Amino acid sequence: MSKLPNLAVVGATGAVGTVMLEILTSRKNVWGEIRLIASPRSAGKRLSVRGEQVEVVALSTDAFEGIDVAMFDVPDEISAAWAPVAAEAGAIVVDNSGAFRMDPDVPLVVPEINPEQTRNRNRGIIANANCTTLAMIVAVAPLHREYGLKELVLASYQAVSGAGQAGVDALHDQLTRVAGDRALGSRTGNVRNAVGDDLGPFPAPVALNVIPWAGSLKDGGWSSEELKMRNESRKILGLPDLKVSATCVRVPVSRGHSISVHAVFGSEVDAEGAREVLRGAPGVILVDDPANGEFPMPIDAVGTDPSWIGRLRRSLDDPRALDFFVTGDNLRKGAALNTAQIAELIAAEFVPATR
Amino acid sequence: MSKLPNLAVVGATGAVGTVMLEILTSRKNVWGEIRLIASPRSAGKRLSVRGEQVEVVALSTDAFEGIDVAMFDVPDEISAAWAPVAAEAGAIVVDNSGAFRMDPDVPLVVPEINPEQTRNRNRGIIANANCTTLAMIVAVAPLHREYGLKELVLASYQAVSGAGQAGVDALHDQLTRVAGDRALGSRTGNVRNAVGDDLGPFPAPVALNVIPWAGSLKDGGWSSEELKMRNESRKILGLPDLKVSATCVRVPVSRGHSISVHAVFGSEVDAEGAREVLRGAPGVILVDDPANGEFPMPIDAVGTDPSWIGRLRRSLDDPRALDFFVTGDNLRKGAALNTAQIAELIAAEFVPATR
Ligand SMILES: NC(=O)c1ccc[n+]([C@@H]2O[C@H](COP(=O)([O-])OP(=O)(O)OC[C@H]3O[C@@H](n4cnc5c(N)ncnc54)[C@H](OP(=O)(O)O)[C@@H]3O)[C@@H](O)[C@H]2O)c1
Ligand SMILES: NC(=O)c1ccc[n+]([C@@H]2O[C@H](COP(=O)([O-])OP(=O)(O)OC[C@H]3O[C@@H](n4cnc5c(N)ncnc54)[C@H](OP(=O)(O)O)[C@@H]3O)[C@@H](O)[C@H]2O)c1
Repeated sequence: MSKLPNLAVVGATGAVGTVMLEILTSRKNVWGEIRLIASPRSAGKRLSVRGEQVEVVALSTDAFEGIDVAMFDVPDEISAAWAPVAAEAGAIVVDNSGAFRMDPDVPLVVPEINPEQTRNRNRGIIANANCTTLAMIVAVAPLHREYGLKELVLASYQAVSGAGQAGVDALHDQLTRVAGDRALGSRTGNVRNAVGDDLGPFPAPVALNVIPWAGSLKDGGWSSEELKMRNESRKILGLPDLKVSATCVRVPVSRGHSISVHAVFGSEVDAEGAREVLRGAPGVILVDDPANGEFPMPIDAVGTDPSWIGRLRRSLDDPRALDFFVTGDNLRKGAALNTAQIAELIAAEFVPATR
Repeated sequence: MSKLPNLAVVGATGAVGTVMLEILTSRKNVWGEIRLIASPRSAGKRLSVRGEQVEVVALSTDAFEGIDVAMFDVPDEISAAWAPVAAEAGAIVVDNSGAFRMDPDVPLVVPEINPEQTRNRNRGIIANANCTTLAMIVAVAPLHREYGLKELVLASYQAVSGAGQAGVDALHDQLTRVAGDRALGSRTGNVRNAVGDDLGPFPAPVALNVIPWAGSLKDGGWSSEELKMRNESRKILGLPDLKVSATCVRVPVSRGHSISVHAVFGSEVDAEGAREVLRGAPGVILVDDPANGEFPMPIDAVGTDPSWIGRLRRSLDDPRALDFFVTGDNLRKGAALNTAQIAELIAAEFVPATR
C-alpha cells in the first residue's frame, strides 16, 4: 500500500462540509482523489477543494467505488443508513453524526487523547465526538492525566451554528429585527413580538435571549445534548464511572461553543501547576490574563484550531477542584478538524513505514 | 408612630432608580412623601412617581430632613460616603450597592428568606444582595430548608443592563453594526472589526459573543462578581461554610440574569419533591415543561417579579444533587423590587400593630 488513499466527503455542501473543504485545502495533502458527495439536490454543483473545482455526486453505493476513507458530515439518519454501506464497500468511515458514537464496536476518537483507538475497526466505522464535548475534553484530558478526574459540572454557551446554517440564518434574521431598539427587553413579550413566529431551528427567539435547551427530551428531564456530554466524556477518557452533570444552553453567538467547567480530581490541584500542564498540551491554547482582558471568547476562537482555555482558578472551598472556561470553534475542532485529524491518522497507515 | 413614613429614593434617575419609580407606582402605597434625589446634574428634573410629577433634588445632608427610609440606588462609592450621612440624619437606609453587604453590622436581606434580619440595624443600614445572587437564592433557599444545602456550582448568563444603561446602549450600538451579516464569526477578528473600539463598559465586544468576566480582578483569578455570589449566598443563608464555585459570564441579553445551578444537599433529593417545594415557595415561579418549550428565559422573565426556575433534574451520578436553571429580572428582583420589599417591611413598623 503505497498509493495515496482516496477520500470521500459525504455532506460536502453542509455547514461542516464547507469547513471541511477549507481544512482539506489548507492542511498537508495526504489524499489521492477527493470525491464530494451530497444529496441528489446538489449533484452537479461544483465546489472548490485544494484549489480545484470538483463536481458533487449524489450519494449512492457506487459513489464509494475506489474510496479508502469516507468522512460523513450528514444528519444522523443518513449516517445510520449509509455509513455501513460505505464500510461494506471497503471504505473506512469517519462519522461526524451522533449515530454511532455510543456503539461499543465503534471507537470515539479525539486524536490528542486516544489516537490508538482508530485501530479498533470492528465495524469499519470511527466516530467523532459532538462539538460541545470536543471543545471541553481536549482541555480536560491533560488535567485528568495529571490529577485523576472524578467529576465534571458543566454549563454550556452554544453558538447557533451548532444547529447548522439554519441556526445562523435565524439569529441574523432576528437580530435585524431587534438591533438598536433599546426599549426591547424592558417589558414582557417585546422580544417575542419583535422577532415574530419564525424561530428557525430553535424553540424560542435566540436574539437578546438564552435558551436552556439543545437537542431532544430524554428521561429525567435531561436533553440529548446534555447526555452526550456525559456519555461521550466517559467513553473518550475511558472513565465509565465519571460523574458528569451538564446543562446545555443556546446563546446568541454565531460560531464558537463555550463551556464553564468545574472539574473535581482525585488529588489536590494547584492553578499554576494546571496552567503548566495546559501550556504543554496538544490542541489547547492557554489564554488566561484577565487583568489584560485575556480570556477565551467565541469571537477570538472562531477560525482557529485549538480549544481556548482560561479563567483557571482553584476552587476556594475544595483543594481538589478547578474552575475554568473553554471556547472552541464548533465547526473546526468541534467537527471538521477532528474528523480530518482522524482521517489523517488512517491515511498514514497507507504510507510505507520507512517514509 | 401612626403617620405614613417618608421615603427618599437616592439615584432616582439611574437604571435601578427608574424601575424603582415604576415599582413604587404599581405596588400598594405605604409612603407619605416620596423624595427623589440624584446628582446635582439632575437637580430640577421632574420624574413621575405614583402618577405625580416630582422634582429631583441634589444629594446633600439637608436632603434627608424628615426622611424615615432612604433607598440608595447609586454607585458603591456614593453609597459608602452618603448612606452613613442619611443614617446619621435619622433615616433607615436600604442600600442597593456593594458597599455594605459584607459588613458584619449590616444585614443582607432577601424578604422571602431572612426578613427578621431587617431588625439588626446597628448601623441603621440594610443591604440588598447583588442581582445574580438574588435571582438564584430565592430558588435555592426553599430547597435548602428541605434538603440541607452543602455546595453550589454556578455559571451565570448575565444581561448587559447589569452594567447600567451604558451596558444596554453598548449592546444595541454593536448589534446595529453586526446584525444581518451572516459572514461575521466565520473568520477571526471580524466581530471585533465590525464592532470597532467603542466597547462601552465591557472588556470586549458583547454582540455575537460571551465574555467570561464581570467586575474586578481579585486573588486567585476570581472576579469580584464571582466572590459576591459565594459570600452573599453564605451570608443570606446563614451558612458560613457553604462550598460555592461561581463563574460569571456576560451575554448579549438586554435584561434578565440567568444562572445554571448544580446544588448538592446533605440528604437525597428527588426532582418531583423539589418541584413541589418550589411550587409553594414565595418569589418563585416553576416553569418546567421542556417538551412544550417551557423553561426559564430572559425574554419571558423580564418585567416580572419572581425568579423563574426550570430544567430541574436530579443528577444522574449523585442522588444528593439537583441541576436547574434560573432566570430573574436583574432590575426588578435583582435590585429595585427587593429594595422596595425591604423598605415595605420597615414601613410596616410605622403602622400601629392593630391595623
Ligand atoms: N454544526 C455543528 O456544529 C456540528 C458539529 C459536530 C457535528 N455535527 C454533525 O455533522 C453533521 C452535519 O451537520 P451540518 O451542521 O453540516 O448540517 P447541514 O448544514 O444541514 O448539512 C447537511 C449535509 O448533509 C447532506 N444531506 C442531507 N440529506 C442528505 C441525503 N438524503 N443524502 C445525502 N446527503 C444528504 C446535505 O446535502 P445537500 O446540501 O445536498 O442537502 C449537506 O451536505 C450532523 O450529523 C451534525 O450533527 C455538526
Ligand atoms: N443594574 C443592575 O442590574 C443592578 C442590580 C443590583 C444592584 N445594582 C446597584 O445599584 C446601584 C445603581 O445602579 P444603576 O445600574 O442604576 O446605575 P446607573 O444607571 O449608572 O445610575 C446611577 C445613579 O446614581 C446617581 N449618582 C451618580 N453619581 C452621583 C453623585 N455623585 N451624587 C448623587 N447621585 C449620583 C445617578 O444620578 P445622575 O443621573 O444625576 O447622574 C443615577 O441616578 C449600583 O450600586 C449598582 O451596583 C445594579
